[in-house]
Amino acid sequence: MRAMRENDLHQHIFSRNTSLPERVTLGPGDDMGGVRIDGGQVLVTVDQLADGVHVDLRHTPLEKVGRKAITRNLSDVAAMAAVPVAAVVAVSLPRDFGEARANTLFDVMRDTASHYDCPLIGGDISMWDHPLLIAVTILARPPASGRCLGRQGARVGDVICVTGWLGGSLHALEGRVHHLDFEPRLRTAWALAEADPPPTAMIDLSDGLASDLARLCGASGVGAELWADRLPISPAARAASEHDGRAPWVHAVADGEDYELCFALPTAGAGPSLPGEIEGVPITAVGQVTAAGNGPRLTLRRPDGQVEALSESGWEHRGS
Amino acid sequence: MRAMRENDLHQHIFSRNTSLPERVTLGPGDDMGGVRIDGGQVLVTVDQLADGVHVDLRHTPLEKVGRKAITRNLSDVAAMAAVPVAAVVAVSLPRDFGEARANTLFDVMRDTASHYDCPLIGGDISMWDHPLLIAVTILARPPASGRCLGRQGARVGDVICVTGWLGGSLHALEGRVHHLDFEPRLRTAWALAEADPPPTAMIDLSDGLASDLARLCGASGVGAELWADRLPISPAARAASEHDGRAPWVHAVADGEDYELCFALPTAGAGPSLPGEIEGVPITAVGQVTAAGNGPRLTLRRPDGQVEALSESGWEHRGS
Repeated sequence: MRAMRENDLHQHIFSRNTSLPERVTLGPGDDMGGVRIDGGQVLVTVDQLADGVHVDLRHTPLEKVGRKAITRNLSDVAAMAAVPVAAVVAVSLPRDFGEARANTLFDVMRDTASHYDCPLIGGDISMWDHPLLIAVTILARPPASGRCLGRQGARVGDVICVTGWLGGSLHALEGRVHHLDFEPRLRTAWALAEADPPPTAMIDLSDGLASDLARLCGASGVGAELWADRLPISPAARAASEHDGRAPWVHAVADGEDYELCFALPTAGAGPSLPGEIEGVPITAVGQVTAAGNGPRLTLRRPDGQVEALSESGWEHRGS
Repeated sequence: MRAMRENDLHQHIFSRNTSLPERVTLGPGDDMGGVRIDGGQVLVTVDQLADGVHVDLRHTPLEKVGRKAITRNLSDVAAMAAVPVAAVVAVSLPRDFGEARANTLFDVMRDTASHYDCPLIGGDISMWDHPLLIAVTILARPPASGRCLGRQGARVGDVICVTGWLGGSLHALEGRVHHLDFEPRLRTAWALAEADPPPTAMIDLSDGLASDLARLCGASGVGAELWADRLPISPAARAASEHDGRAPWVHAVADGEDYELCFALPTAGAGPSLPGEIEGVPITAVGQVTAAGNGPRLTLRRPDGQVEALSESGWEHRGS
């Protein structure tokens, strides 16, 4: 039996939530929801971090767990080019977790949130006989430009760009593991929102380039071709490749938890004039937006020139 | 070894979160946090519902589970007299939950939220090999009066009032179980915020009158005396009393999950002029605010006239 897919469940919720009040500026289906309160727009996102799914407490220091609970959610905020304002956390602690460790965990979450000017202003703590689960909610406001960058809006011909390097996020290299140590791309996102022209659509890479780009394309009603030989392959992806024998570009396309940004840029702002880096973060053109035909939504031009279909769900987060 | 106490953990977080940015209007320690965005005030609260802790999926219909996930959080919104604006949910589903049941759960959460004009605008779904856990975050705005009602502010001499009836929330009576079927007291709270005089402090009753009143008194720096013979004892508390032999008033003081409001009213607005009901919900004076001396924070005047200390933590939510 095919397992439940998170995408299907999301689809179910979205499809029936069609009569939202006027104050809702962004309904379900993007990296953040949005609502107008007292004339101002408030954005909100919630994300979960579970022991055994997103981290493994047997191997991951508590400091990294607490940090990731916050930064992973800030990556969603960056995806909209929004500015974090405040956070609340809900934590279910195993009953035998211990008070000292609980305090360490909360200290790290609070300090990480403060570091990104996103103070922890409330929370809920509960105890149970199951693994640690943390749900972080972040409130944010639109960037200075007033323009949030959503998943909708990519147009045929736009160049697809990514920040940073892709792949191998779970692979330890020189004492660093990207999925625990990454920097949410807030500053880069704010700079992009101010750029002329700004991206037409943006998403953060949590489930992997193929899966997340498929979401952006689905929301925009377009397709995309990725260029395998242009992908910014991370050193960790190369190391992982040596380890498992899969080509480095497969890791870059398929691995999850990059927490980089993927965005579509009108060609006027791309090509020769594509910025090589923004706020110290490299920007790489990795493909192009295509028309959504009857064929596969995503294709990949392999290094040997062959073009093949990319499964949209091939690398969906499998929950462990 | 004494188990970790949720109160201690909360205390730890609050005590170290002293340097909050100016935009934070309500830090941790009340029923909701608050932050100023674009000039308007946004309130936020998060709450968890866990299978085996707050509900039991072996006996509780999914419709009731989804409803309670939302209404329990709306009770926190009512505690501040705030007006719900939007909600997001984070759900960890057991891998074998089944898609049809997942859809039912999400439908009920979405419909319940809509019913209270609090549309679901986003969420996160994850799957794992452990029980269902739902974290609901609600955004709200201050009431029309502009005055949110917090836990701080109760003054010596104020009358302590509660809405509705207390006790026996888990006890089934005539096919109804209060903790699944209760109505969050939003309308009553809004009317109270408009009253002249309004309450000086308010909290909702989730862990039980003794525990929650102790929190209100702690935040206000006062004590309180409860009058056992004035407590509005619910029929379910009487039934539970017949079942376990504890006095009905003990159930009213100690049982959790009433989801009623408890508030302090200046005596000018109490006594003979105490409103008997608001928006169809009975209001009962159950005690009085006292000075915080060296003795116990809470005392109880028993039906026989004897006054005894009430343990502040005696009925803390034990997590199952």
